[in-house]
Amino acid sequence: MSAQRNSVAVSTSSTRDEAILAAVSAGLRRYGPRKLTAQDVADLAGVSRMTVYRAMGSMDNAILIALTREFTAAVATIRAGLPEGTGAERLAAFLGDGARAFVASELVASVLAHQPELLEPYLSGRLGRSQEVVLAAIEDLLAAGRFDGSITDHAPSALTLLLLIRGVALGAPLLRESDDFERACTELSALVAASLGVGANAAGVNTGAGTGTGTP
Amino acid sequence: MSAQRNSVAVSTSSTRDEAILAAVSAGLRRYGPRKLTAQDVADLAGVSRMTVYRAMGSMDNAILIALTREFTAAVATIRAGLPEGTGAERLAAFLGDGARAFVASELVASVLAHQPELLEPYLSGRLGRSQEVVLAAIEDLLAAGRFDGSITDHAPSALTLLLLIRGVALGAPLLRESDDFERACTELSALVAASLGVGANAAGVNTGAGTGTGTP
Repeated sequence: MSAQRNSVAVSTSSTRDEAILAAVSAGLRRYGPRKLTAQDVADLAGVSRMTVYRAMGSMDNAILIALTREFTAAVATIRAGLPEGTGAERLAAFLGDGARAFVASELVASVLAHQPELLEPYLSGRLGRSQEVVLAAIEDLLAAGRFDGSITDHAPSALTLLLLIRGVALGAPLLRESDDFERACTELSALVAASLGVGANAAGVNTGAGTGTGTP
Repeated sequence: MSAQRNSVAVSTSSTRDEAILAAVSAGLRRYGPRKLTAQDVADLAGVSRMTVYRAMGSMDNAILIALTREFTAAVATIRAGLPEGTGAERLAAFLGDGARAFVASELVASVLAHQPELLEPYLSGRLGRSQEVVLAAIEDLLAAGRFDGSITDHAPSALTLLLLIRGVALGAPLLRESDDFERACTELSALVAASLGVGANAAGVNTGAGTGTGTP
């Protein structure tokens, strides 16, 4: 009886937390992190301001949890959209797509622009939950590639690959031409694919510039 | 006559600037960027405080110029120490060594630790002179590799490679184990080398795990 009540309570609480987090995300898009208040979130979620604080601890924490939720959803979406292929091919595609998703995220852009000090600890101090989500996905894809034989033991570690995604994603504002970022993402994927031996069969086509197959 | 006087003035001025910059670097190592005063620099360089300001504009500017000098010297040292080999091999080695040099630099570490806001614009806003020095070196090595045929037109752009160095260098504080950073540098070089087809002959050795050659 008690156990049952607890389980109902947990389920209600996580539904409520989910509604609050959705409200935080919506509020961030609408107001930005600096102007978003607990009252805004409470209104959007249809709960009291006290409930927002009780669930999230603080607005800063609420924003960080909303960002982790965004990363988790983005990683799941990217993985679901990866092309069929070997683990190596999918891993390589994931890296470029991951950098693209980071830069495309309205939520990340809003926090980076208006409250970068909230992200600072995760840029130069420790990984934090959001980057651990990305790291776990890379580890999964590496494991899948090792299992299907497309990735050898000499492949780079998941941590190094995470640093490469970060390099491209965080470097985006430095690139003056909008094409440069897209090219950097494509090149990151191509670089890792080539280093893993993906398309070794097709390598002759790439380097055989004189074959005149008409591809630009 | 006038031209001659100008040329002497320029030469004297650049010797003096060099002495001031050497004093800024020494002062940064000794006091850190926050505590270093124009008077400290003047004393170390044997010039007046006014001369320091006239040559450098401001202490912030002096620190940035000293950092560019550090980057320029580091890039020259790395290039001089690159192994003999093809352009592709030398480029790959440069990338890992570049990340190592960034992290090993006392000057960079001191400014990052004590006055990160001085570097912030160059981390997320624009390249700035120091990173342009690194970019130019990458472009040179790419050109050398294209010239000797070791790098094809499908190689990643210099800008993308710069983002990868940045990713590894700036990610260093995230890596808990000290070995992780060294491994990330080695893996960056190996990744780029493999993607450029360096050691394609040796690839059989790497993947042939069962050949029992006794290498660990």
